[in-house]
Amino acid sequence: MPGSLRPMDRHRYVADAVVTCDATDAVYTPGVVEVVGDRIAWVGPLDGEAVVDDSTTVHHLGGLLMPGLVNSHCHTPMTLVRGAGDGLPLDRWLREAMWPREGRMTAEDVWWGMTLGSAEMLRAGVTTSCEMYLFEEALVEAVTVSGARLVMTPGVLSALHADSHGHGSDRMVALAEFHARHHDPVGRITVGVAPHSAYDLGVAACSELADLARSLEVVLHLHVAETKMESAALEAEHGASIVRILAEHGVFGGRVLAAHCVWVDDADIAVLSDAGVAVAHCPVSNMKLGSGIAPLAAMLSAGVTLGLGTDGPASNDSLDLWEEVKMAALLARVAALDSTAVTPAQVLAMATRGAAAAVGLDDVGRLAEGFVADMIRIDLDHSTFVPVTEPSELLAHLVWAGSDRRVTDVWVAGEPVVVDGRVTNVDEDRARAEVSSRAVRLAEG
Amino acid sequence: MPGSLRPMDRHRYVADAVVTCDATDAVYTPGVVEVVGDRIAWVGPLDGEAVVDDSTTVHHLGGLLMPGLVNSHCHTPMTLVRGAGDGLPLDRWLREAMWPREGRMTAEDVWWGMTLGSAEMLRAGVTTSCEMYLFEEALVEAVTVSGARLVMTPGVLSALHADSHGHGSDRMVALAEFHARHHDPVGRITVGVAPHSAYDLGVAACSELADLARSLEVVLHLHVAETKMESAALEAEHGASIVRILAEHGVFGGRVLAAHCVWVDDADIAVLSDAGVAVAHCPVSNMKLGSGIAPLAAMLSAGVTLGLGTDGPASNDSLDLWEEVKMAALLARVAALDSTAVTPAQVLAMATRGAAAAVGLDDVGRLAEGFVADMIRIDLDHSTFVPVTEPSELLAHLVWAGSDRRVTDVWVAGEPVVVDGRVTNVDEDRARAEVSSRAVRLAEG
Repeated sequence: MPGSLRPMDRHRYVADAVVTCDATDAVYTPGVVEVVGDRIAWVGPLDGEAVVDDSTTVHHLGGLLMPGLVNSHCHTPMTLVRGAGDGLPLDRWLREAMWPREGRMTAEDVWWGMTLGSAEMLRAGVTTSCEMYLFEEALVEAVTVSGARLVMTPGVLSALHADSHGHGSDRMVALAEFHARHHDPVGRITVGVAPHSAYDLGVAACSELADLARSLEVVLHLHVAETKMESAALEAEHGASIVRILAEHGVFGGRVLAAHCVWVDDADIAVLSDAGVAVAHCPVSNMKLGSGIAPLAAMLSAGVTLGLGTDGPASNDSLDLWEEVKMAALLARVAALDSTAVTPAQVLAMATRGAAAAVGLDDVGRLAEGFVADMIRIDLDHSTFVPVTEPSELLAHLVWAGSDRRVTDVWVAGEPVVVDGRVTNVDEDRARAEVSSRAVRLAEG
Repeated sequence: MPGSLRPMDRHRYVADAVVTCDATDAVYTPGVVEVVGDRIAWVGPLDGEAVVDDSTTVHHLGGLLMPGLVNSHCHTPMTLVRGAGDGLPLDRWLREAMWPREGRMTAEDVWWGMTLGSAEMLRAGVTTSCEMYLFEEALVEAVTVSGARLVMTPGVLSALHADSHGHGSDRMVALAEFHARHHDPVGRITVGVAPHSAYDLGVAACSELADLARSLEVVLHLHVAETKMESAALEAEHGASIVRILAEHGVFGGRVLAAHCVWVDDADIAVLSDAGVAVAHCPVSNMKLGSGIAPLAAMLSAGVTLGLGTDGPASNDSLDLWEEVKMAALLARVAALDSTAVTPAQVLAMATRGAAAAVGLDDVGRLAEGFVADMIRIDLDHSTFVPVTEPSELLAHLVWAGSDRRVTDVWVAGEPVVVDGRVTNVDEDRARAEVSSRAVRLAEG
């Protein structure tokens, strides 16, 4: 908790390698990160000019330091329904396995689902997640305990959840109140607005919610062009691609995060790029659900802001963003039949500074002066990090062999939240037991 | 080592779940595996009729037991060149990064590279690998220490390595002698023959080596249709697809393992199926090198025997076959735009009994009576295995969330080779240090 830090605590972390993920992708071997309070004060090589004074605690960490990863599109409480209905066709999976269980969820269920998922992400070095879900208060309460950073974009859905959770004007008022209560750009929680999608809500409702997001100056988060069927249906209805229709209806006027963007063509990509719409790329989910292959290389070339996302754990079924890192690189290469299609540095940027920008956080995702001290330590004493004959190979090893199992320590806003592989603020055994028993109840109805 | 076991040692292992990977994909929750010497004597539910006598040691393991995984196509000593030249186009990667380093390798380098990789595989629960590489004696010596099961198919290559390692008639004699020395179908090491490929050696040499494999009654292991360019060149030269040409030249007359088979059409698949040719599917390598997407669903439908392989660690860059498991399922689903394309049970079979059959081992890859006691224990106390509301979800969790980090214990031929996450027979720290320093020498030339 921020309250447990004296604001002027000074820490100097020394590591064998510091991968900054800054604009120049600088790597220092060995390197230093200096943290004052919840911010990074200085980053550089070990022989650099960092200022150590008597109040500084020096930590000789070894290993590799890099920014905490940012999961730019997630429905984390779906840990409660992980594995349910696997292998069903997509529409039956939603209608028979997911929606009935979700319809039975209580706020307490969601609190436990988020708690378990938040711990899983922290252990993987994912320090921030951008969440689209209902029971938004429960998610806020769960991360207030776990210590993770959260961009909470409460979901707005049509018929499915209308009765129990509301939408329309009541939901608009509730969203504004939720924003007023929790949006804290200098703390760990920010708030956005999340119309589920144009195919669920209609374009007019998306436009109305975009106006709300703009008036609150927060991120608008919605699903765009995830499946071929949905995209074709919207195009048939509106006579243009959904990306162009959303642009024409003013949905892209503010800061927008579009999840998936699998079925977009070059003209759509130009629209996204021109409007500054960021895309959350979720390769594992897109593959597992048979949705398709997003044109990552084309979006990168067009300068679209890109983040990686796990999507919900029921369509993955992991919250380990390292898998997204490897998958994004692999999928882009095989789609292009080109082993040069995406570089390790590009993919790492999508997991850090790109994802942070995508979810509306401009001081997150880099080890650089003035950025928040969200940082992870990776153990390099692992066979898959051997050998390293030049520093650039470290980036390749992170992409091809990074994994939750390599992350030993995690800090959020300067606070240690994972120490030597153990999550400090969550009782994971209890959370697993709670989610296990609640999942049985949700399955039985 | 087999010598350390008294042949009649009897062990009864009790687990919360036993995933047999047998022909019916039976799962027992809870279940029992009884081992006598190096073989499985009985498998069944806890309340079944297993015979315990006074000489039986009972182990209450908890967790999940399943067969050790089988890596059906690998060049494991390439741990020495892992990460080198990442991002170069394929031909430059081979010519500038891989071949010069490989040309400098000594038998001692290869021993250390294999030792490190063998330990990495054992920790991931990969108990068998089918290796295509040079310095075959060094690989045999390395696994004799690590305790892994090995199908050693010494590589036969053309010009690149001809001067230092030989090919042609001398190599044929050496292969037969190597086979006579090491082929041991009741032990842990079997021997095959591995012409690199038709594009490297020509069809006639492949045919000659196929005759040798047939005369020795061992598996023939070669690369087939990995890249579009190679496949198109062979087709232009021969006027038919390489699969059909190999079939016409009698290469498929014996027991054959074809690695990759990315660029095969339905007619090729029919040829493979009719000839009983097994395919080693290597999705991560095919993606990383931009080779293409193998038609897995079509090969499964046609009844082709299929195994999973990591390929060399420089084109992956991991030896964790669990990644192949997840990737094979994901890639098949996205290629078909169908979330039902491949089932968890089908993919697990490809990592166990399918791969074992593919590499010529008919008593490996299942927890079933009479099969070798190659077995792994998985810790189910992990968030990604939560929840389980019915036993079939265990198979889904294994596919989507299996990983080296879940494997706690490994037995090969009844001998414990990984205990509580530690490899018992290899000093991994020493191996990492050796591979690290040797890699620098190989890079510098």
